[in-house]
Amino acid sequence: MATPQDNLLDWLRDAHAMEQQAEKMLEAQAERLQHYPQLRARIAQHIEETRGQQQLLASCLERLGSSPSTIKDLSAKLVAFGQGMAGMTVSDEVVKGAMAGYVFEHMEIASYTILIAAAKAVGDLQTQRACEQILPQEVAMAEWLQQHLPEITEAFLARSAAPDTQAKR
Amino acid sequence: MATPQDNLLDWLRDAHAMEQQAEKMLEAQAERLQHYPQLRARIAQHIEETRGQQQLLASCLERLGSSPSTIKDLSAKLVAFGQGMAGMTVSDEVVKGAMAGYVFEHMEIASYTILIAAAKAVGDLQTQRACEQILPQEVAMAEWLQQHLPEITEAFLARSAAPDTQAKR
Repeated sequence: MATPQDNLLDWLRDAHAMEQQAEKMLEAQAERLQHYPQLRARIAQHIEETRGQQQLLASCLERLGSSPSTIKDLSAKLVAFGQGMAGMTVSDEVVKGAMAGYVFEHMEIASYTILIAAAKAVGDLQTQRACEQILPQEVAMAEWLQQHLPEITEAFLARSAAPDTQAKR
Repeated sequence: MATPQDNLLDWLRDAHAMEQQAEKMLEAQAERLQHYPQLRARIAQHIEETRGQQQLLASCLERLGSSPSTIKDLSAKLVAFGQGMAGMTVSDEVVKGAMAGYVFEHMEIASYTILIAAAKAVGDLQTQRACEQILPQEVAMAEWLQQHLPEITEAFLARSAAPDTQAKR
């Protein structure tokens, strides 16, 4: 048995940990990308957004008498996700990386969809508004990746088929 | 250095392994769900679709002189994903499970988006058509989950707050 408030607080902590993991993953990707400047620039933009999202979530947690420092162990679970995705980043790193980013964005979209429903159920308007502010940033990043997946794939295939050309990142 | 055909074949094998993993994950979810019959029914429908997708992909692989049995080790990597998600299925199993399903659908959507671009680059119309046939099924499942996430969350919160009521699945 748990109150809706308990669940909301748990999910807010999960979301904060998720955004920390997102920041790490995006930073690692941006650092490694060499031949795909448009993708790199979009990731750099989203890193800034991600940091702002962490602050929004932290202020919700503090208002509710909790704090990001009491984050439960979602991070460890997300590491498994990151490792699984990282394990894919082999010869076609840029393609699998864009895919991993797209997938992670949808984990975030699902999380904020759930958080908005929970905040509504609890009647916590401030948390609802914070999540409604974050959600469109995740949707925009996901849409950008989906729209650019075909051209990233084409660019990778062309570089991959050319001699003496590094294609993977 | 790899030809577009090499990459296409690799990605087709990945997609077949991914659909095998999807079938396992969906079967496990459907089997465990007790109090969310609508979600369970939609998952059951998608299990059937997933089996049809496996056959479509297998026939593409066979036509290209490969076979699903030579599948490379994506499965092992996906297991990490599955475990990461499974690790989340604690007291709020139904919510995290729906979220995991939604996230996995987007891995599939990204894969078929990439495969369609690759099949076009190679000029493999039959593979392109097969993937274009599968993609809308994944999109429909993802949309269904997104639309139902709020009500699944609300139902979970209500059950979770009630005494003597099992909420998690």
